[in-house]
Amino acid sequence: LNNSLDFLFHPRSIALVGVTTTRPEHWTRSLLEGLLELEFDGSLYVVNPRGGHIGSQMVHRTLQEIPGTIDYVIGLVPASLAPELVNECAGKEVKAIHFCTAGFSETGETEGIRLEAQVVKAARENDIRIIGPNCIGIYCPKSHMSFAPIFPKEPGPVAFVSQSGGNSNSLVREAAIRGVRFSKVLSIGNCCDLNETDFLDYLATDTDTRIIAMYIEGVQDGKKFRQALAKATKEKPVIILKGGLTEGGARTVAGHTSSLAGSRAAWQALCRQYGVILVDSIDEMVDVLVALLFMPLPRGRNAAMIGAGGGASVMIADDFERHGYRLPPFPAELVKEIREFTPPAGNILLNPLDYSQTMFDFERLEKAIELVADWEGVDFLVKYMRTSQSGKSGSPSDDSRFLAGNSSNNNTKPVVIVIEPSVIPEEEKSIFKVMQSCISMKLPVFYSFGSAARAINLVLDYNESHPGKLTI
Amino acid sequence: LNNSLDFLFHPRSIALVGVTTTRPEHWTRSLLEGLLELEFDGSLYVVNPRGGHIGSQMVHRTLQEIPGTIDYVIGLVPASLAPELVNECAGKEVKAIHFCTAGFSETGETEGIRLEAQVVKAARENDIRIIGPNCIGIYCPKSHMSFAPIFPKEPGPVAFVSQSGGNSNSLVREAAIRGVRFSKVLSIGNCCDLNETDFLDYLATDTDTRIIAMYIEGVQDGKKFRQALAKATKEKPVIILKGGLTEGGARTVAGHTSSLAGSRAAWQALCRQYGVILVDSIDEMVDVLVALLFMPLPRGRNAAMIGAGGGASVMIADDFERHGYRLPPFPAELVKEIREFTPPAGNILLNPLDYSQTMFDFERLEKAIELVADWEGVDFLVKYMRTSQSGKSGSPSDDSRFLAGNSSNNNTKPVVIVIEPSVIPEEEKSIFKVMQSCISMKLPVFYSFGSAARAINLVLDYNESHPGKLTI
Repeated sequence: LNNSLDFLFHPRSIALVGVTTTRPEHWTRSLLEGLLELEFDGSLYVVNPRGGHIGSQMVHRTLQEIPGTIDYVIGLVPASLAPELVNECAGKEVKAIHFCTAGFSETGETEGIRLEAQVVKAARENDIRIIGPNCIGIYCPKSHMSFAPIFPKEPGPVAFVSQSGGNSNSLVREAAIRGVRFSKVLSIGNCCDLNETDFLDYLATDTDTRIIAMYIEGVQDGKKFRQALAKATKEKPVIILKGGLTEGGARTVAGHTSSLAGSRAAWQALCRQYGVILVDSIDEMVDVLVALLFMPLPRGRNAAMIGAGGGASVMIADDFERHGYRLPPFPAELVKEIREFTPPAGNILLNPLDYSQTMFDFERLEKAIELVADWEGVDFLVKYMRTSQSGKSGSPSDDSRFLAGNSSNNNTKPVVIVIEPSVIPEEEKSIFKVMQSCISMKLPVFYSFGSAARAINLVLDYNESHPGKLTI
Repeated sequence: LNNSLDFLFHPRSIALVGVTTTRPEHWTRSLLEGLLELEFDGSLYVVNPRGGHIGSQMVHRTLQEIPGTIDYVIGLVPASLAPELVNECAGKEVKAIHFCTAGFSETGETEGIRLEAQVVKAARENDIRIIGPNCIGIYCPKSHMSFAPIFPKEPGPVAFVSQSGGNSNSLVREAAIRGVRFSKVLSIGNCCDLNETDFLDYLATDTDTRIIAMYIEGVQDGKKFRQALAKATKEKPVIILKGGLTEGGARTVAGHTSSLAGSRAAWQALCRQYGVILVDSIDEMVDVLVALLFMPLPRGRNAAMIGAGGGASVMIADDFERHGYRLPPFPAELVKEIREFTPPAGNILLNPLDYSQTMFDFERLEKAIELVADWEGVDFLVKYMRTSQSGKSGSPSDDSRFLAGNSSNNNTKPVVIVIEPSVIPEEEKSIFKVMQSCISMKLPVFYSFGSAARAINLVLDYNESHPGKLTI
């Protein structure tokens, strides 16, 4: 077996076996669309016994029909045909098969377990590595591989290994919107051959990856996983979302990827020992990635808040102090300076600084922010806008400027943006524009006070237990 | 002073004093628009020294110019002119003035404090009650009063009293989208005359109100508030969001409504004693209202989950069990029955029941749900759909049917819907349709697994400490 898994991410040719030729909406098509949309630049083949064409793509009736050898096969055939496909792959010198197919050991049924064992046996005999089964495989923008057509084409520093296709889909979608880009994303399913530890070990020294995120349902070999974790956490931040930490969750894990989930206490101890950032949800994982990537590390937990709305100011102050931050009161001298050019009615010249009545008076606003940022008592700034406040000026660009300042703005302290989305599509249209404009300026954008407070806390905790490690 | 505050909500005439005649986007206009849009059916007058017209609405130059008496005045004039306005109102037999105007005691400045005291003195002398200052007043759909044009015209059972205009705006907006309707909403600002206790006391016996929600920054008289709370909680559920429970929050409260916030421990003890539902955010308050109004009370915490996606199923199982629910494993007999008509590949026939591969095969789906709902081991059902799953069928009506069943569906157990919104406007368009369709069927809709789990828990906790009270 190869030591490095690099070959998985740089195949010269890919064959998709079992893409439907008749149902354009079928999920097997999105794997083909992903590769076409990201312009996979090796040879791309599609196999289906019906033959014919899908768009301009010729469909081969068998794998054998394809001329020459094939590096990487995506298996979309029913589970019952999987062992046979492995044997056919052997004849084409295939190095790796990613089996999308479900219906194996995760069903808990004898037939599925038997078929999976057969696949492994055939693969081992022929020196073929297996990703899956029961997963959606690889997204690697650098080599133009993708399991979904909507993912970004530009690569980035984050790797994600997931024992759930749905979670890998959600993570990439949600993180991409917030400006996060990826080196390698892997949905690894039942892990009948290559498993979570293999990929963690590989990513620890992968030079394209600066942060490793994982969704883990269970590990096959606790000792090896621990070793890989020790190695990886020495190199880069590791974020883990552990599924199945409750009784009901653990039972679901067994049915999903046939893994043993492990106890909550054991996972917490493991994460503490190696300084892993343990998160509770995909959303929290996205928030932590955003904080790691786009927020320069603040010196401490003294925050200054700037926004609009008295109630909102109280809520954000409570949310941040509840999470262990401090909103130091501004010194009288600083308040006096701001008061000199700011009318008091409807504004609150405290920390939070509620600039409701003068929020689009940018000259004053930016002068006030500069004064606050320059004060030594504050480590970072949070700027916030609620759903009900956005769109008030009638112009998304005013909202963006309120939150992000102008591009020449060079704040002396890290800045965090909180902008609450709307569920109403017409409102969200303008809020989304504001968000995108902040994100394009490489600012960390969060959707709620609480989620910003939690994510920044996890990053600060991590930095305190691993001083000097955060040089991202 | 009157014992009942009914007169505030049923004025025969309203005069808005100080609406801008020149700037249509100015905030003072939204108060006029609110009354016009909700078709206030008494006499409506607008006063501004410039005179002229706003649309078809004639603008009087002075209050005196208006013929006859006026019941209710909305004061939008600068703080410096407020005492004079009270005196003018006296001449028109005004019963109540709602002062929107800020710039009073909340500024902490001598001049603002002096002006507020002058307003109170003049009002007392003339037997006029004051709402505010520094607030946006009353929304009472039954009498067609509203401080915003976008609020629903139909009345409902929820009252909300808020020491923040922004929070009352957010609460009504967010709750209305979820199907909640209101009896009386009051933004009460600095409470220089009528305060939080007066309104709580009034709402306790208000027959239009079945649930009281409050956003409190501080109370003026602890003993009286406690008495009102004892009375109100005997009559109906009371939900409180307390702002300023941290040091920074408390300082903000002082600057916002010039209140003393009170300690966290004291508030928690008070809420425990009277069985108040204490929430942490506006979002959580909306979630609790939705659970109280649209979810029949389950017998207990045994939940069955039905959705799509293995990772999603693990996440929701963990989220609910972490919050003290139990996802009991389905008996072998039940699984066997479902398995008879459900293919196992890509589905997980456990609890959660992951129906990914057959989610739009409604005959099977509804048969499976019926079997689960009929099982005595389960107290309520949760149906869920993630952002990345919605729109898969290409039809919002398929998604709605997956979540809500068909209208003839008569589940034997309470049903909860979790549907994750999208921040991407085009996606949200279809998700919003699905949401609205579930909401129109009077189903409780939540935006995340965790928020549903927390809100239902708060309602169940309340019911356990107040058995038999929840007959909403």
